[in-house]
Amino acid sequence: MTFVHPIRVNWGDCDPAKIVYTGRIPNFALDAIDAWWDHQIGVDWFRLNLDHNIGTPFVHLEIDFRLPVTPRSPLLCEVHLTRLGQKSVSFSVQGRQDGNLCFEGKFVTAFVTADAFRPIAVPPDIRQKIEPLLHAG
Amino acid sequence: MTFVHPIRVNWGDCDPAKIVYTGRIPNFALDAIDAWWDHQIGVDWFRLNLDHNIGTPFVHLEIDFRLPVTPRSPLLCEVHLTRLGQKSVSFSVQGRQDGNLCFEGKFVTAFVTADAFRPIAVPPDIRQKIEPLLHAG
Amino acid sequence: MTFVHPIRVNWGDCDPAKIVYTGRIPNFALDAIDAWWDHQIGVDWFRLNLDHNIGTPFVHLEIDFRLPVTPRSPLLCEVHLTRLGQKSVSFSVQGRQDGNLCFEGKFVTAFVTADAFRPIAVPPDIRQKIEPLLHAG
Amino acid sequence: MTFVHPIRVNWGDCDPAKIVYTGRIPNFALDAIDAWWDHQIGVDWFRLNLDHNIGTPFVHLEIDFRLPVTPRSPLLCEVHLTRLGQKSVSFSVQGRQDGNLCFEGKFVTAFVTADAFRPIAVPPDIRQKIEPLLHAG
Repeated sequence: MTFVHPIRVNWGDCDPAKIVYTGRIPNFALDAIDAWWDHQIGVDWFRLNLDHNIGTPFVHLEIDFRLPVTPRSPLLCEVHLTRLGQKSVSFSVQGRQDGNLCFEGKFVTAFVTADAFRPIAVPPDIRQKIEPLLHAG
Repeated sequence: MTFVHPIRVNWGDCDPAKIVYTGRIPNFALDAIDAWWDHQIGVDWFRLNLDHNIGTPFVHLEIDFRLPVTPRSPLLCEVHLTRLGQKSVSFSVQGRQDGNLCFEGKFVTAFVTADAFRPIAVPPDIRQKIEPLLHAG
Repeated sequence: MTFVHPIRVNWGDCDPAKIVYTGRIPNFALDAIDAWWDHQIGVDWFRLNLDHNIGTPFVHLEIDFRLPVTPRSPLLCEVHLTRLGQKSVSFSVQGRQDGNLCFEGKFVTAFVTADAFRPIAVPPDIRQKIEPLLHAG
Repeated sequence: MTFVHPIRVNWGDCDPAKIVYTGRIPNFALDAIDAWWDHQIGVDWFRLNLDHNIGTPFVHLEIDFRLPVTPRSPLLCEVHLTRLGQKSVSFSVQGRQDGNLCFEGKFVTAFVTADAFRPIAVPPDIRQKIEPLLHAG
């Protein structure tokens, strides 16, 4: 039931310290949340914006870095929905390589109309799909 | 006395929502901290690693997003040293366009030997340069 | 008269070979062409697309890599308009550090309406501004 | 026998024209060549550099853009070895979505010692693995 998004770590993701550059990690986590939308709700951010006129801008993110990430193994990003508010949702993302926790983060996104960037409540059909996932952990 | 790092925002930094992509913002903040090292301590991360065998891996970052960033104005990133511990330092970064706060974040970096990635205390010569900046606010 | 766009090279632009990652170089060149538009024509790609409904998609790019790029010096990108066709324009970009040529490339962009992505001829007002630059070399 | 590297295209890869940003395409092609090394030779660029002290810096790349890339389908990157010289190898990369050619490019990499960045001939054991692939098309 747990959603895990695998990422192939590339040479170009790494910096001269021979590990993935810090600035790439948030991008990996975001890609994992984008994939979560696609898999769990049936639309990724691109379709949500262009086909449904809904945007989910980030209002907060935080990440704790536990271990370096390298290209030696796939990066497995586990995504959980952790909170469903009136106007925003929160996610946790844990990134693991070879079973070891490399980073974990918390991410909060609001909802807006994509065209006018006007804040809206979580749309009812999305809420309906999200709610069971929340209780599933 | 305040260190402000200006960034030219480009077309390629933006996503289909016509604003800078969330994943680019941490990179902007990191570039600003890299520039802070260069300006305040006299060595950027590249020289610190390659010439002085010192790395400063991130252990934590968090960002609150207040307003979208766009290419219409320069992005001014104000960097402050906020804490000097035995083994780590903390920074705040505020990003502004046209005087409006777009994002603000907190960043914590540890110290390691660059070659062996072995944790070390803040090197004395760096501590000496950093301490006055801490009290300067 | 020559347009040169300076770029600060960052730690995060580099890979474990301790030089700028190949994949970053086209991005630097594109940023330089975007800055050329802003400086020479008075609108960058963002404004051209959003305010004027004109897009300039790339149809071709090629780059020869001469010397590695590093964060030790600014990267100076010299941009020249090299051809003005009915429906496309070509640019050359030379990237230099400390007076040494690091890369040089050729870039061709077409013109489209931004909303429908429909091919168009070079718009007359843009052609008028571009033509003198072509002859200026 | 043909090597095809699938890439998930993300929201963050796209620009305000609602297509993948031009500057991302070379990065996709490079990731595909990195994956080719891993699959065909048994070591990716990271291991080649760190474990075998061999680097493969790019000396040339060129790309023709045929159709926009979007997140609506996977991007399938077909990689072929097209030339094996004394000191360099060449690759072609074709990127397709839904069977349509989106871009195609040519890439030339030299060989160096990773530590000293000193030019070397194609190492014999690599040549031995590469030669059959060349004739296989």
